[in-house]
Amino acid sequence: MLTRFDVGTVITMNDAGDIFRPGTVVYDETGIQYVGPPEGCRHHADQTVAIPEGIALPGLLNGHNHAAMSLMRGMADDSALFEWLSQHVWPLESRLTANDIYIGTLLAAAEMIHSGTVGFADMYFAMDAAAQAVKEAGLRAWLARGLVGSQDPDGQKLEEGVAFCQAWEGQAEGRIHTMLGPHAPYTCPPEYLARVARAAQDEGVGIHIHLSESQGEVDQIIASYGKSPIQLAYDTGIFASRTLIAHGVFISQEDLPWLKGLQGGVIACPVSNAKLGNGIMPYHLLADAGVAVGLGTDGAASTNSLDMFLEMKMMAWVQKLRGQRPDAFRARDALWAATRGTAAVLGHNGGLLAPGRPSDLIVLDGGQAHVTPEWDVLANVVYSATGADVRYVVVAGRMILQEGVITTFDEQAVLKLARERQANLAKR
Amino acid sequence: MLTRFDVGTVITMNDAGDIFRPGTVVYDETGIQYVGPPEGCRHHADQTVAIPEGIALPGLLNGHNHAAMSLMRGMADDSALFEWLSQHVWPLESRLTANDIYIGTLLAAAEMIHSGTVGFADMYFAMDAAAQAVKEAGLRAWLARGLVGSQDPDGQKLEEGVAFCQAWEGQAEGRIHTMLGPHAPYTCPPEYLARVARAAQDEGVGIHIHLSESQGEVDQIIASYGKSPIQLAYDTGIFASRTLIAHGVFISQEDLPWLKGLQGGVIACPVSNAKLGNGIMPYHLLADAGVAVGLGTDGAASTNSLDMFLEMKMMAWVQKLRGQRPDAFRARDALWAATRGTAAVLGHNGGLLAPGRPSDLIVLDGGQAHVTPEWDVLANVVYSATGADVRYVVVAGRMILQEGVITTFDEQAVLKLARERQANLAKR
Repeated sequence: MLTRFDVGTVITMNDAGDIFRPGTVVYDETGIQYVGPPEGCRHHADQTVAIPEGIALPGLLNGHNHAAMSLMRGMADDSALFEWLSQHVWPLESRLTANDIYIGTLLAAAEMIHSGTVGFADMYFAMDAAAQAVKEAGLRAWLARGLVGSQDPDGQKLEEGVAFCQAWEGQAEGRIHTMLGPHAPYTCPPEYLARVARAAQDEGVGIHIHLSESQGEVDQIIASYGKSPIQLAYDTGIFASRTLIAHGVFISQEDLPWLKGLQGGVIACPVSNAKLGNGIMPYHLLADAGVAVGLGTDGAASTNSLDMFLEMKMMAWVQKLRGQRPDAFRARDALWAATRGTAAVLGHNGGLLAPGRPSDLIVLDGGQAHVTPEWDVLANVVYSATGADVRYVVVAGRMILQEGVITTFDEQAVLKLARERQANLAKR
Repeated sequence: MLTRFDVGTVITMNDAGDIFRPGTVVYDETGIQYVGPPEGCRHHADQTVAIPEGIALPGLLNGHNHAAMSLMRGMADDSALFEWLSQHVWPLESRLTANDIYIGTLLAAAEMIHSGTVGFADMYFAMDAAAQAVKEAGLRAWLARGLVGSQDPDGQKLEEGVAFCQAWEGQAEGRIHTMLGPHAPYTCPPEYLARVARAAQDEGVGIHIHLSESQGEVDQIIASYGKSPIQLAYDTGIFASRTLIAHGVFISQEDLPWLKGLQGGVIACPVSNAKLGNGIMPYHLLADAGVAVGLGTDGAASTNSLDMFLEMKMMAWVQKLRGQRPDAFRARDALWAATRGTAAVLGHNGGLLAPGRPSDLIVLDGGQAHVTPEWDVLANVVYSATGADVRYVVVAGRMILQEGVITTFDEQAVLKLARERQANLAKR
């Protein structure tokens, strides 16, 4: 079925930076058929949605999440990091059921859909439940079973991770992709990372791993192994497969040789990195070296929000702080990171509106006070708009948010269940 | 008329930190009559609003704004600072009419009301027009005519600033207060600051001034006068009156003696300070020295948003970055800065919900996915909620936002006029 959106503005995020005002997008389930000025469109659509004040753009891609942790949003917030993990997060995680993870992932899906995210990369456990939630929600996802090497002496969890890839790769009409998820070098010894690296090569899947997130991690890895987390990942063979490096706050000039030719890239999580007091990732160091940089939220237990508009703002703000100049990072750079950047890290052909690309787009309400007037639509989208302005979300040609209402599952029922699970977890 | 709100949660921000769940607030035009559990309320209200998932809290106080600059939102964004000011902002400001400023201030008021702000401190020009807009919008405001000493050789603008204070102090049923607004030490020579200081003493009004915003400013003032901006302000007699210091990013240990006993305090503008690449203000240095710290957005021309929820998040995030610890600044500290902190700087008795205090409150919708579940209501309000969640705003006992709709002026007409003014300014 051909659907046509006639909107005030279309931001394509193609290489030429085309913006059409007014603009038209036509798509079906197989991909985008037309993007351009309304008068140039020769397609006969089955349905037309006209939003004169709408701003259409590629759907946002959240490159790093632990979706089910939305159930822990705000738990023991603002605590010191080790106390938070050891006294709160880990004990609670040990009690989570697969059903908790299913509900938590749907809760995260509801928030992501409302705020304009069309796909996300996730690392957690009980991933069959997470995949089922993704399938029902209508999102795209790159899912990995998290692997803590120190808790996997016989490699059973790695086997589960591989089995998950075999079961779910390409499922949900191709919306689900799979990866292996070794948690981090401080929880996975080198020989375990090497096993995961070999398994990824055997399966032909990518790897999702936390690297160089905190100064403490870098110090510990150098003290233990005499090399940085990045070099350790390289030496264990991780980078032989496409690798999604989450955080990368402490990647240095000395790490660049190990990242040369990397398939994949780094997902910046600026809110999480600030909220946990870690620091500001070296965007320009990486971008200048040709390393793809995408954007992600991290889990809502630490970030408290899965709104990628918030991440775009924070990415621009902290990079300007780091560069000590207002022109050190621009609105377009932030939107690029949240679309093309994450797509490049994932090896995904979406993140832009162009014929033949996936039918993944969002439409914002550009008619409200906080985005008025409009000198610069990119500045308004990145710095002034929020996820709450998203009115339509289309994934793989299916309208999963329509006039602000989720069409794929019963959101109110999920919120009710999430409150019940929280009450239950708080008690247990 | 007595109005009663029955909500899921009342966050009082009183000294005891009381939170009532469920909670009731009763108020009339003269002040708050009751705050507490529903069953303790003995008042017979004329109208009752029941919002089982609502979260009531004191209205937010934006301590530093140039409201009419909302007309320039996004203009020449991400430019280097001096280019932005000299080639874009100043030429455009020279062409602004009083009507532009009236429309721009109403545009800002619309955004502020929607996002839960009940009062703001403003520095701009053609302030009669701004005051008229505030009067119609139903907000509180602390208004100052901006004074650039180098453009005021005969003191005519200072006279205008004094006349504005005499005309508007206490107007709009007491919602409008006035201050004198010497722009900054790099635009006002010491002898001019001394004249303003004497005028403030004579009139009995406070002073609103930018101090220690950028490293460049501090370097220039030290090079010119052999002292820091803070010491210069002290030496010229500014601090003899209540002083609202905007920014204060580069206030140092050496400045503390000059701030001892200061009436007023510092308004942090963390988004502006990041967006312009300036830095992170020294919250703990000031708070530990007993200096009040409030929160403000700065003008939307540089910040792009007047959403104080965004400022609360950013304040917490950058202070955690500065402190390199997640517990360096907490959700409660952020909400305190945006309510009690700004009130302390302004010498205002609002910023908390307690009997006898001003009837200024807001109610958020706490039922949405992005604030579910609720482990910690303060964390949810500060880190997960946004201005878009605000459903009711009450100022001086008058409901100026009701179920998300502004009741005091025709918002759509203002947005239309703002778009026309922008088109006109872009052309001129």
